[in-house]
Amino acid sequence: MSAIAIDEVRTWAAEAGRLARSYFNRVSHVRKADRSPVTQADLEIEIMLRERITARYPDHGIIGEEQGIGSIDREFVWCLDPIDGTAAFIAGLPTWGVSIGVLRYGEPYLGVIAMPLIEDCYWADVEGPAFRNDEVITVSSAARIDGNDWMGISSYAHRQYRFDFPGKMRSLSSVAADCCYVARGSAVGALIGRANLWDLAAGLSILRAAGAAIVGLSGAPLDVPPLLSHPKLSEPVIIGPPQLMATLRGYITRR
Amino acid sequence: MSAIAIDEVRTWAAEAGRLARSYFNRVSHVRKADRSPVTQADLEIEIMLRERITARYPDHGIIGEEQGIGSIDREFVWCLDPIDGTAAFIAGLPTWGVSIGVLRYGEPYLGVIAMPLIEDCYWADVEGPAFRNDEVITVSSAARIDGNDWMGISSYAHRQYRFDFPGKMRSLSSVAADCCYVARGSAVGALIGRANLWDLAAGLSILRAAGAAIVGLSGAPLDVPPLLSHPKLSEPVIIGPPQLMATLRGYITRR
Repeated sequence: MSAIAIDEVRTWAAEAGRLARSYFNRVSHVRKADRSPVTQADLEIEIMLRERITARYPDHGIIGEEQGIGSIDREFVWCLDPIDGTAAFIAGLPTWGVSIGVLRYGEPYLGVIAMPLIEDCYWADVEGPAFRNDEVITVSSAARIDGNDWMGISSYAHRQYRFDFPGKMRSLSSVAADCCYVARGSAVGALIGRANLWDLAAGLSILRAAGAAIVGLSGAPLDVPPLLSHPKLSEPVIIGPPQLMATLRGYITRR
Repeated sequence: MSAIAIDEVRTWAAEAGRLARSYFNRVSHVRKADRSPVTQADLEIEIMLRERITARYPDHGIIGEEQGIGSIDREFVWCLDPIDGTAAFIAGLPTWGVSIGVLRYGEPYLGVIAMPLIEDCYWADVEGPAFRNDEVITVSSAARIDGNDWMGISSYAHRQYRFDFPGKMRSLSSVAADCCYVARGSAVGALIGRANLWDLAAGLSILRAAGAAIVGLSGAPLDVPPLLSHPKLSEPVIIGPPQLMATLRGYITRR
């Protein structure tokens, strides 16, 4: 049995989602030192989640997008992105989510991503499988890619890459959403830019439970534990079904 | 006063949106002759809208994505896309909408676009202004484009163009949604592929009322009346604030 009650984490994510939704289209933002935006909703949600986690699991560590890196020398470390896709949230776009991931000894252990506007919650723990709401999900089982497939990319990818993907390419502006749509087999894959651990931690658990591979653009496997002390990915990663990874990589060329 | 009661059209769009929402994540699809997908939701919504329009405005013409071109020799012609963004709808993505446009003597007269998952309704008639729900909207008044701006593109644009846009590029997979986000000044512009009249008719009224320019990629102004008999755009169009059109065009190069 998992050491963390995932049903309870889902209720926290739903609560956070309602809070985010109450601010949607009604909030201004400021820019952080790295020029990325933050809103009152991000800040309130992170505080709320930290309170819930600390009360229930006082010996666990917490890393959050807005309040930084706490105690990472614990068996369990929670990685919080209160609103993954803050820029989409500010733009009035619906593709953003509350992302709650847990690592155990640095490896993905549990993930919950709530996308409140569409009432979707994606979740998985280390025992698997992965779920969208109450339905088990898996990555695409397709043997090849055709013009009806779609792939997620970051919203800045056009500046760095040339793509020869034969289908549709969509930038949802949320790493968490990219992970969910790949995990459910809707997207055939995604190219994720140099995200931070909190963007990706929940998604990694869900992707692994759904059968996805996660590989750096260079072909190197993603090494998660070092991200605890250096949260930014050292290179972009491709996520998708194992049988399609080489094909997906082949569509991407540096400009 | 407008010849069409737009408040009533908004109630039809809301009704259609509820119907679409009831099918979201619960519907299969087939492919039409042009390989584009269609669902039971598209078909039922178009039938419902045609019934409402015919009962209320029996002498008006109707063109619909699913049931084709009817009487286009009327003063008023309704252009219906029951679900603009059907592929996104099928993929479980939230960016799709019910698009109801009216032309008068071939020119944009009225438009209503409902995005039911996010409870947004965009609307305008020929008397202006444009609205999102009960709030007046206008295109961006920015004098220049920077790295925090975003632009909409079609999900196949990567195959045809190279982009040097300095900000984010997002493909929402719905022409109607592209029009709405440009009209409200969230997106600084969008490149729309060779869409059909029903994809664009509602959006054109909303864009014009919000102060947008609509120009072919060649620089030629969009001539709407010929689309009644030949619904497919002869070239992609750029939509955006008049003061930024030349800049936007300059970012786009054919591959």
